[in-house]
This record gives sequence, C-alpha cells and structure tokens, in this order.
Amino acid sequence: MIFSNLKLNKNEPIYIQIKNHVIDSINKGDLKKDSKLPSTREVSKFLSISRNSVIAAYEELESENIIATKRGIGTFVLAEGRNNSHEYFIDYSKSFNKYAYSLKHLDIIKSELPYKKNMISFKSIAPDSSLFNLDDFKRCFLDAFAYEGPNLLNYGYAKGYKPLIDYLFSYMEDKGVNSINKDILITNGFTEALHMILSSLTSTNDIIVCEKPTHNTALKIMKSLGLEIIQVELDAEGMNLKQLENTLENNNVKFGYLIPSYNNPTGIVTKVKRRKEIYNLFRKYSVPIIEDGFNEELLYSSSPIEPIASLSGEGNGVVYIGSLSKILFPGLRIGWIHGDAQLIETLESVKRGINIHSSFLDQSTFYYYLKNGSFNKHIKNVRKYYKDKYNLVMEMIEKHIPYESVLGEGGLHVFIKLKNNLNARELLELCYNDNVLFMPGDIFYKDFYDTNGLSIDGINTFRIGFGKVSDEDIITGIKIISKNIRILENNLTKSSDNK
Amino acid sequence: MIFSNLKLNKNEPIYIQIKNHVIDSINKGDLKKDSKLPSTREVSKFLSISRNSVIAAYEELESENIIATKRGIGTFVLAEGRNNSHEYFIDYSKSFNKYAYSLKHLDIIKSELPYKKNMISFKSIAPDSSLFNLDDFKRCFLDAFAYEGPNLLNYGYAKGYKPLIDYLFSYMEDKGVNSINKDILITNGFTEALHMILSSLTSTNDIIVCEKPTHNTALKIMKSLGLEIIQVELDAEGMNLKQLENTLENNNVKFGYLIPSYNNPTGIVTKVKRRKEIYNLFRKYSVPIIEDGFNEELLYSSSPIEPIASLSGEGNGVVYIGSLSKILFPGLRIGWIHGDAQLIETLESVKRGINIHSSFLDQSTFYYYLKNGSFNKHIKNVRKYYKDKYNLVMEMIEKHIPYESVLGEGGLHVFIKLKNNLNARELLELCYNDNVLFMPGDIFYKDFYDTNGLSIDGINTFRIGFGKVSDEDIITGIKIISKNIRILENNLTKSSDNK
Repeated sequence: MIFSNLKLNKNEPIYIQIKNHVIDSINKGDLKKDSKLPSTREVSKFLSISRNSVIAAYEELESENIIATKRGIGTFVLAEGRNNSHEYFIDYSKSFNKYAYSLKHLDIIKSELPYKKNMISFKSIAPDSSLFNLDDFKRCFLDAFAYEGPNLLNYGYAKGYKPLIDYLFSYMEDKGVNSINKDILITNGFTEALHMILSSLTSTNDIIVCEKPTHNTALKIMKSLGLEIIQVELDAEGMNLKQLENTLENNNVKFGYLIPSYNNPTGIVTKVKRRKEIYNLFRKYSVPIIEDGFNEELLYSSSPIEPIASLSGEGNGVVYIGSLSKILFPGLRIGWIHGDAQLIETLESVKRGINIHSSFLDQSTFYYYLKNGSFNKHIKNVRKYYKDKYNLVMEMIEKHIPYESVLGEGGLHVFIKLKNNLNARELLELCYNDNVLFMPGDIFYKDFYDTNGLSIDGINTFRIGFGKVSDEDIITGIKIISKNIRILENNLTKSSDNK
Repeated sequence: MIFSNLKLNKNEPIYIQIKNHVIDSINKGDLKKDSKLPSTREVSKFLSISRNSVIAAYEELESENIIATKRGIGTFVLAEGRNNSHEYFIDYSKSFNKYAYSLKHLDIIKSELPYKKNMISFKSIAPDSSLFNLDDFKRCFLDAFAYEGPNLLNYGYAKGYKPLIDYLFSYMEDKGVNSINKDILITNGFTEALHMILSSLTSTNDIIVCEKPTHNTALKIMKSLGLEIIQVELDAEGMNLKQLENTLENNNVKFGYLIPSYNNPTGIVTKVKRRKEIYNLFRKYSVPIIEDGFNEELLYSSSPIEPIASLSGEGNGVVYIGSLSKILFPGLRIGWIHGDAQLIETLESVKRGINIHSSFLDQSTFYYYLKNGSFNKHIKNVRKYYKDKYNLVMEMIEKHIPYESVLGEGGLHVFIKLKNNLNARELLELCYNDNVLFMPGDIFYKDFYDTNGLSIDGINTFRIGFGKVSDEDIITGIKIISKNIRILENNLTKSSDNK
C-alpha cells in the first residue's frame, strides 16, 4: 500500500498531504508510470480519513495530469518520476513545524493584495527615502572607517557596538529612563527584539496582554510561538483600565505588550495619567511590560511624552524596545532592547546563538549619524514634512470619508473606522480595481478570521499610511476611496430596499 | 509561608531558585526587614526538596548579607527591599525557557577562558582584518549608492537584494550546483541560516546526524532546540560509511549536517569518492542533507572540490548554506541558503517574522565587491598569505608538539590530538598562565561534559586558529604550548612512578 508510510500532520489540509505524498512517491520511484493507485474508498478506509479528502486530492492530481482515472477500471499514474540515479526529492512541506507554518500563513506580504506599478498605495508606513540625506550618511560611513579602521568589518560583539550602546543609554536617559542595573542589546530592528524576548521567555500557551488593535507583526510572532493573546480595548486615552485589571486579575499573564506612544494601527497616544494607571496595574500584579517605543519621535499634536519605562525608576518591570526605523534607514535594521541587566545578559547569549551580532558597519555608521547632529537635523526636517502630509490627509478625510472615527495624532498613518459597519475588505477590492491600495484593519485584531475564513473583528476599519505618498496622490487616492464608499453604501441601501 | 507561591523549574539548580525567591520576595515587599524566615527543615518539607539545597541557598544569602542566622533563634531578613511605591522587580531568571537557558549555558564566550590584552591567542578562526582592502570596500559602498540611491536605506525584501541573489546563483553554478526549482535566501550569516532551517523544520527530539567532531555553534543550536544529535566518526577521507549507514538504518533521522569541504574543527576535507558515497547513503534513506560550505575557498593542499550539493542535480535533497565570513567581512553578517524553491518560500516568511530582512546597505556593498573583481583579487591575496601561515604552523607543530595526529588541509586552523591522552584543558590552564590561549577540542563533541561536569570526549584535542596571529607569535606561542606539554608529561610520569 503506497500510503502505508504516510504520516498525516495537523498543520496542512489532509487532501494536500495526500496529493503531495503521491507526487513524492512518483519522484522517489515508489510509484511507477502506469501503475494503479488504490481507490479513494480504500485510501479513506486505510488512513481513517474522509473519502472526500481523497477524492479532492485525486481530482487535483488529475487536473495537473499527474494521474488519470479510467472509468470502471481505476486510477493510474501518468507522470514519469523526476528521479534519476543521482537525484532524490524531499517533500519539505511535510516537515515544517507549527512555528514555520504559522509564520508563512500569517505573512501578509504573501496573503494581502500586492502593490502594482503606478498604484496609489496607502499600505506602507515606511518613511520616504527621498528625505534621507545621503551626503550626511556617506560622511558618517567614512567617519566610521576613519575611527574604527578595518576591524569594523571583522567579528564584533553580540551586545552591539559599544559607542552606539553608550549613545543609546544617554538617549534613554533624556527620555527619563533610569539605567541602574539595566543594560542594552542591539538587535536587527524591533522585530528581532520582540521575537528574541518572547522566544526566550515564554512557552506555548503563555498569556500576553496587548492593545486592541495592535501591531500585526507582534500578533504574528505571538501566534507563531503558540502564545495566548488577550487584547484589551483602547479608547482615546489608552487601554481600558477595567478590562485590563479584570484580565490581569483573572489570568496568569506572562507579559504585557504595549505601544503607548503611537499605537499601530490606531495612532492613539496613551495619555500621561493613563500611562501611570496602566503601569500601576501591571506593577500590582507583578507582570512585566514590553514597551514598544514605536514612533515616539513623530508626535505632532501633543508635546513629547515620556515612555512608560520612565515610570519604573530602578525597578526592572519594563523592558523597552527602541527602533528608529520609521524615521531613519529601516533598511539597516537597527533596534535595541533596554532592560534588566541579567535579562540582557541571557538575551546576549541568545543573540549570539541566532546570528552572532548585528552588522558592525551599520551600527557604527548609524552611531556617527546620531552623534554628529545629522539625526536631529533630519528629525526636524521630517517632522515638518510629515506633519503637513498628515494635515492634508486629515483634511481630505474630513471632506470625503463618512467615518465613525478617525484616529492618529502623529506618525505616518491614520486609522479609519467606517460608518454603517461597511466592509473595508469589500472597499479594498473596489479600490484595487481603481489602482488604490490601503491596509485592511482586521489584521490588527487577534481573531481576524472566524472559522469560515471570514473576518469578524475590525472588518469596518482600515489604515492609511501616507509617508511615501505624494500630496497629489493623497488627494486623488482619498477621493477614489470616497467614491467607492458611496458605491458600497448604495448597494447597502438597495439590498435593504429589496427586503 | 513565603515559599507557597514558588514554582520550581527544572532548568536551574534548586538552591539558586530558593535564593532568588527570597531576594525577590524582599524586593516585592513580601518579606520585610527583620522578619523571620522559615527554618531550612520547614522549607525542605514544604517544597519536598533536599534540605541541603535550602541550606546552600541560606548560606549564600547570608554571605551576601541579605539574611542573618541567630543561633537557636532563627534566620532573619537583614536587607531592605529595593521596592518603593513606583518600582517593581521581576526575577527574569525564572522565566527563561529551556531554549534560552541552553543558549546561555552553551555560550562559550561566557564559559571559556577570556582573551586578555597582549595574549597570544590561537582561539579565533576569524580572518585578519588588516587584509581587508578598505579602499576597494569604500568604492563598492559608493557604487552601491550610485546605483541604488536612497532606497538602499529603506525597507527591502525578506529574500534579499536581487542582484546579490543573482550573483550567488551563478556562483553556485560555477561550483556545479544545479538551480532548477531552487531558490536563494540571504541570511545574517551561517548561524542565522542554520538556526532558521532547524527551528522551522524540526521538533524536539528529532534526530540530526553530523560529523564527530563538528562545529560547536551548530551543536549549540541543535541542543537549544532540543534535538537529538548522533555524531559519526571522521577519518581522513570523511565520515565513516559503516557508522553512517548503521545510523541512518536504525534511526528516523531528520537531517544530516555536514561540513565536507573543511570540517570545523579538524579541517578534514571529505574526498570526492567519499562525498559520493555519503550522498548516496542519505539518498538511499531519503534523508535531506544540510551542507555547510564553510571555507570552500581556502583549500591549500587539494584542488577545489565541488560541494555535495553539486551531486544532487535537479533533486532537492541537499540544502546548502553559504558564507564567506571566514574570508571576507564577518562583521557584515552575510550568508545564504540555496535549496528547494518551496522550502525557501516558507523560510522567506520565517525570515520576515524574525527580523524582516538583512541589511540592504551591506548586501549591496558586498555585491559590488563580489562583482567588480575585488573579491577575486582578495582571495588570491589571502590564500597566499594564509597558506604561508599554515605552513609555518605545521612546521612548528612538527618540531615541537608530540601529537597523535594533526589535521587540517587549509583554512585558518589546524586540529591537534595529543599523545598519551594528555588533557588539553589542563594544558590550556598552564598556557593561560603563560598568556597563550587556544580552543579546547571537547566543545566540538556532543557530550563534552559528563554528568559530573567532566569532559569525556575529545579531551586530548585542541584547535589552533592562526588567521590573526603574527608569525612571531606563532613561533613563540607554539613553543610555550610545547613547554607546557612537557610539564604535563612529566607530571604523568611522576604520578605513575609513584604508583
């Protein structure tokens, strides 16, 4: 029986596994051309699975001309195996574990509608490359070499480039963060920092509390590690305190993950009073906070706010993840973790085990950019630039979009909730045909698909990223979105008229 | 009872957990200054643990003036809690999972004797920075900017920088490797590549076959992921075939991990005939091979040998990890995975989940360095340089070291097995006092510690890395090693005389 060495896994649809097993067996030479396959009934009985799965597998194989069914006679192998005396074939899809499988499954680059040339895209929240001052950058690169010489290109230290670490200590101090018994580890951006902390300090089914909605990459990492996620509603001041306390009281929560300075996607800035209340709740229940310092530098409407890490004094309850990627050089992938010294010491070993260290050339160049004033010059420049864009976006939305709410006090994006529970994914379909793209909001909710693959949370929301969009395209793009909202509204009216 | 909320874990010694719990309780305010602790007998009974563990914990706490015992009265808290109204303290050491704990435990940078200034160090196998041609490098950096502009500093693609990927395809083709249905993913060096493959495609207790001895970083990653390791003996031709077949036949092996071109640490180059035999065995049992292309460019005594990946034709059984870090710019952290296209597609999503992508600035600069001929010029240059060093090292060893075997046909290191089962760790202790450092060989064996913490495998071996050591220091250093071997031998003779 050709299926006797098939071990079914839970990660993939059964019919795909059946199909791959047949292809694999042909390539391995276990199934020769013209040989007869067992009937779908036999296979279903043998593997104790639904016959429909086997039928689906055979149908796909038939449509790809790998097998052929002769009525009343049986199913036969059509294809030649790719195998020859030197080659062998492994079906890696069977080997991926849950972690890899969910990272693939949750990879929005692969699942969401792709950008096409000449589209107006509000999808990205990356900065505008044309604002990067290349001459400044090149000078910093040459400075780095002048000071460090060729050692810059040899192995460095897992913790990171010392002058950069020292610079970041004083940067954190300026934000009011105490560094006693703390340390800093340089990472390849925010993503690596969060992945490293969670993969080192949690186990499957540990519970993480975070905002609702929150950064989709963070949700992806948590899910890939098998963590339980509890999202707590946001209002304009920050996380809902009652819900938070209730959650902390009734669950053995491992970590809080917070984006207080500019929540992605809503752009809500947690207010000073609320920050303290949230911090005190985590303290009360001895639950450590991972603070994502996302876009702290890009608040327009409010004065700078100190991070939650600044509230914890000499305590070690807050682990702060910093990154300047949304302002400066995301392509370099530089971020950092600031937290308890013992924690960092172990994470340093983890970093060494994962990729030894982050590029020293990049760290050093980045350091000279921060140190010599280029960064402050850049910040001033881009803050003005993005603020003007932000104002234009808000003006256009006020004029053209019938929203229930529009959120965002800075940064490179705003978040819209549509009236009448209009479906943002249907809106996206229409806009895509008009060459306009944005990010559907449901991906920022834990349960963005119900069991039928239909979105249940945040379905009437979407995010408008404007960092890289020209003023002209902002105007045109939002008008197109507006036009398509009218179409959806009309459809809605018609369908209720018809009832 | 202050210990009622202590959950013991299996990763740490019990006494450390007891100790940390007391400190934690003091900091949290659960244990006030001057309050009485339960007796060691009570704690041991309450937690069902050995009383000795509790005594050890209390002794350490007493030696650190955190608690004090008054004879006949009891044990009392001496220290004030660090806690104040705003601070809280988390004991992260309790939270690390097995993965993080073993990466820390196996981090040789933290456990092995450290380099001190002015030492002669044979520990590293990194290249000599002074051989890097900085002017060439700077020109390539400027070339990268000239062609790519500021987008080089913005977000790129998880798979990597397209021109570099295309270059590497032709580089692999030159090595005889077929790329049909294959793809390439750029990683942060070899370490990230192996970590990514194993963490995506294996589960705890999966079995990996590798050489004995083998790269300690690879062993570390496998252990941290909870994999079972079976090491197969090497002879001068490569892996022992009988042992390998026996292993493949009797175990459900998930992957082979091979360093055929220049095994680390032995420097053994697997011969062409043996490569085919090894490949055919893996093929016979349908076990995929992860090939570590380590130091392929630095073979002196034999003519270039094609990688095992070149044997697999259009098959996908071999996943090749490439890196030029031992020759060129380890500080940039650039490596790649070449393998089955479907495999790479999922690994691309994993890469995006881990750190989005590798630095595009580094990849682009590196690409121009490879493309414009700087690399070939560099290779020619360093091959001559390191070969001279290698010859000097071998000459000195022949003259001064009483070895059972000395292995290494290229690269930046040789591997010595001492006569009379002399203990290389004892030798290292002696040499360290004479300011000479090398890498003990036992770390390249799976079981380098027995349950008593004593090394059992490879104890009479050590690695001499010479890439960064001056000729003068090579001569002096090996003479010092030689002197200390005599001392150990004399001790041995004396002790057997005394019996």
